[in-house]
Amino acid sequence: MTYKLSQIAQILQIDFQGTDIEIDGIHTLSEATPTQLSFFNDAKYVAQLPNTKAGAVLIDQKHASMLPEGTVALITDEAYLKLAIASKLFAHKVETKGEHPHMDEGCDIDKRVRFGKNVTLGKNVTIMAGCYVGDNVSIGSGTLLYPNVTLYHGTSIGERCIIHSGTVIGCDGYGFAHTKTGEHVKIYQNGKVIIEDDVEIGANCTIDRAVFGATTIRKGTKLDNLIQIGHNCDVGAYTLMAAQVGLAGSTSLGRNVVMGGQSASAGHLHVGEFATIAGKGGVTKSLEGGKTYAGFPAIEIKLWRKMQAALMRIVKNR
Amino acid sequence: MTYKLSQIAQILQIDFQGTDIEIDGIHTLSEATPTQLSFFNDAKYVAQLPNTKAGAVLIDQKHASMLPEGTVALITDEAYLKLAIASKLFAHKVETKGEHPHMDEGCDIDKRVRFGKNVTLGKNVTIMAGCYVGDNVSIGSGTLLYPNVTLYHGTSIGERCIIHSGTVIGCDGYGFAHTKTGEHVKIYQNGKVIIEDDVEIGANCTIDRAVFGATTIRKGTKLDNLIQIGHNCDVGAYTLMAAQVGLAGSTSLGRNVVMGGQSASAGHLHVGEFATIAGKGGVTKSLEGGKTYAGFPAIEIKLWRKMQAALMRIVKNR
Amino acid sequence: MTYKLSQIAQILQIDFQGTDIEIDGIHTLSEATPTQLSFFNDAKYVAQLPNTKAGAVLIDQKHASMLPEGTVALITDEAYLKLAIASKLFAHKVETKGEHPHMDEGCDIDKRVRFGKNVTLGKNVTIMAGCYVGDNVSIGSGTLLYPNVTLYHGTSIGERCIIHSGTVIGCDGYGFAHTKTGEHVKIYQNGKVIIEDDVEIGANCTIDRAVFGATTIRKGTKLDNLIQIGHNCDVGAYTLMAAQVGLAGSTSLGRNVVMGGQSASAGHLHVGEFATIAGKGGVTKSLEGGKTYAGFPAIEIKLWRKMQAALMRIVKNR
Repeated sequence: MTYKLSQIAQILQIDFQGTDIEIDGIHTLSEATPTQLSFFNDAKYVAQLPNTKAGAVLIDQKHASMLPEGTVALITDEAYLKLAIASKLFAHKVETKGEHPHMDEGCDIDKRVRFGKNVTLGKNVTIMAGCYVGDNVSIGSGTLLYPNVTLYHGTSIGERCIIHSGTVIGCDGYGFAHTKTGEHVKIYQNGKVIIEDDVEIGANCTIDRAVFGATTIRKGTKLDNLIQIGHNCDVGAYTLMAAQVGLAGSTSLGRNVVMGGQSASAGHLHVGEFATIAGKGGVTKSLEGGKTYAGFPAIEIKLWRKMQAALMRIVKNR
Repeated sequence: MTYKLSQIAQILQIDFQGTDIEIDGIHTLSEATPTQLSFFNDAKYVAQLPNTKAGAVLIDQKHASMLPEGTVALITDEAYLKLAIASKLFAHKVETKGEHPHMDEGCDIDKRVRFGKNVTLGKNVTIMAGCYVGDNVSIGSGTLLYPNVTLYHGTSIGERCIIHSGTVIGCDGYGFAHTKTGEHVKIYQNGKVIIEDDVEIGANCTIDRAVFGATTIRKGTKLDNLIQIGHNCDVGAYTLMAAQVGLAGSTSLGRNVVMGGQSASAGHLHVGEFATIAGKGGVTKSLEGGKTYAGFPAIEIKLWRKMQAALMRIVKNR
Repeated sequence: MTYKLSQIAQILQIDFQGTDIEIDGIHTLSEATPTQLSFFNDAKYVAQLPNTKAGAVLIDQKHASMLPEGTVALITDEAYLKLAIASKLFAHKVETKGEHPHMDEGCDIDKRVRFGKNVTLGKNVTIMAGCYVGDNVSIGSGTLLYPNVTLYHGTSIGERCIIHSGTVIGCDGYGFAHTKTGEHVKIYQNGKVIIEDDVEIGANCTIDRAVFGATTIRKGTKLDNLIQIGHNCDVGAYTLMAAQVGLAGSTSLGRNVVMGGQSASAGHLHVGEFATIAGKGGVTKSLEGGKTYAGFPAIEIKLWRKMQAALMRIVKNR
């Protein structure tokens, strides 16, 4: 989908001056290309303004002058809200139409699988009854989908993956702008999900599509059941997550991280490679790799054990 | 379904005296109508006895005299157990029969959607493959169901809602009476679920139908994935819940409550409007609106932070 | 499936000496039969070596002499990794082929249910649209599957059970061996799930199949929604679990245990009969029956309440 910038400005009710370029998407200041719209709504990204390659930016009057010469400023005091409204313009059209997938030899596909348009399957893919495989999905050779898996449009699954029943991949990330009166305006999630090779995902997991770019589960990672991966997370290779783990959006894990059952991380954090988070632990700040953490807020497990011992002493002394 | 009160008494093995009225349902003391059966099994509702409008009440001998004149007492020492047995009489008959829905213009319905009887769809409703839409469900205009959503009978969905894959709405609330020997007798959940307009519900959520009356999600509320809403909850307008939140039964939230990931509330509580519960927080008593809470048991976040700091000092002093 | 031991040894790249017996499965040292392969990878099971009835055992050179005379030693320093590789040999072949089930009178089966091979249904079974019922599943009389339930191959469901939508039973337990370079090798889960009579399971639960033997949910147990039961758990009769509970693998519960919402247990533990775990509690060691526990790590609730009171005093004194 492509829009004239003037069209977008009109829809957003923003006065528009400058070159009327073609816009074909939305991305962050650091990632946007000259044909994309970006937005500035958080002072912490101010240093990115002079270097953005975005074609246009939703921005307040005060900061507009910091944009590079080639970038058009769309002046607004509600950049995030305008972003939300603009995001709908680039949303994938959801419809029930489908077609037969492009498939390589040896596939075993149940007749009760529903395909969207332009699906590609490698060799020896097995897809069981009740699965839904959306538009533009690709699935690598040797991958197995158990019954009732849902893959939203644009999802990419690697080779030799196993996806268990009820798992949903590519559902919308949780993103909303908020009006002054407390209503929430959906930020359409126009990114996607990439699952690399040799990944196994348990039953009834949910892996959100990115708002821009991709949510990525790297090779050899094994997820248990009922796990939530937020939008734009990057789960490192060979990671292990026990059941009911949750990662909030934009958190990244290094390789071989281990997360115990019901543990979780807040968003926009990094957990270093070979770190372990004990069951029920809650990560509230970025954590160094190679160590074991426990508790909420998660701290090094040695410290956490001392804390538990101290608590027991307090109680028993009474 | 309608039964003579004498029939019900016979099924429950209760001696029956009084007017043999027609009974068409069950409800609480405060909500029951003259054609409904009610029950008294908890001293905290004793003040409601003289004011009930119920046609009949399952009640112990001692309290029976407190009922108003028009209400028939069904005397039993096991009111809750008898209620459970009676609830089955009014349960919806679950069967695979279905029929074409009544639908307005512009709907896009996958041929692999299964409808129960008497389903009503507004304009421009989209329902993707693998969804199940039970008897007497109504769905408002512009609403979108992604693949493999299940709506149990009687569910009402508003306009412009988005329901993501794998979500189950209207499944039975968790309610059982217990025998003296530790067995559990199902209380059939004969209420329903009401989802108001502009609600978005993430993937693999579960929203239980009410035991009586309705579980309600009010307008503009946005739920992330893997969320549990217990029976008879009332989730206020414009509420935000991050992934893996759980609400136990009969809890109500004011408008614009925010609940962080993996937070939860016990049942029969109220969280005031514009309150925020931080991630992993656990609400164990009703909370005032307009404040932020954290921890388990959830307390004001300032206090919780002091507590964490104190704990760290204790540990580091050793 | 049956293999000559020499074949297995060749696949595992282990030098083989001894009787070339036929092997038809894998099990633990204590449970393996003379036609099964077993493994020794944990010093804590050393006492079981002389008593094993296994036909052959993957074992290190040092302990091999402790095996009884009739048992063949397959010498390896990576017994667990070799076990993982061998487990694939005995894995059920997953394919989309199916056939009409054997069914008794009075069943109500939606035409959009997919059956594997050799399925047996008792009387008056109801199976709603979108369910998948795998190979060799048996379902007892009067049981009801709501829409979009998935039963993996070999699952056994008792009489008068109710399984709510989106629930997945018999998905693979979470078991992997690890290479020296941090990759994970799947241990195929060749056991099954047994659900006894009068069990109700809520929506979007996941109940893992056993690695060997069975995961068991005993009679009259009632599970709420979004619950995870790990492989080889044994959930006692008349147990109650509120929503979002998780049990890690091989944990057993006595009868009439109660687990509050979002509570959990680590693996390989036992919780005694009539114990109660409060909401959000986390069991980290085996617990005596008949008591109530809370917190993480879970302790007796009286102690936990004292701890909370002490914490509040510390904070308020500052």
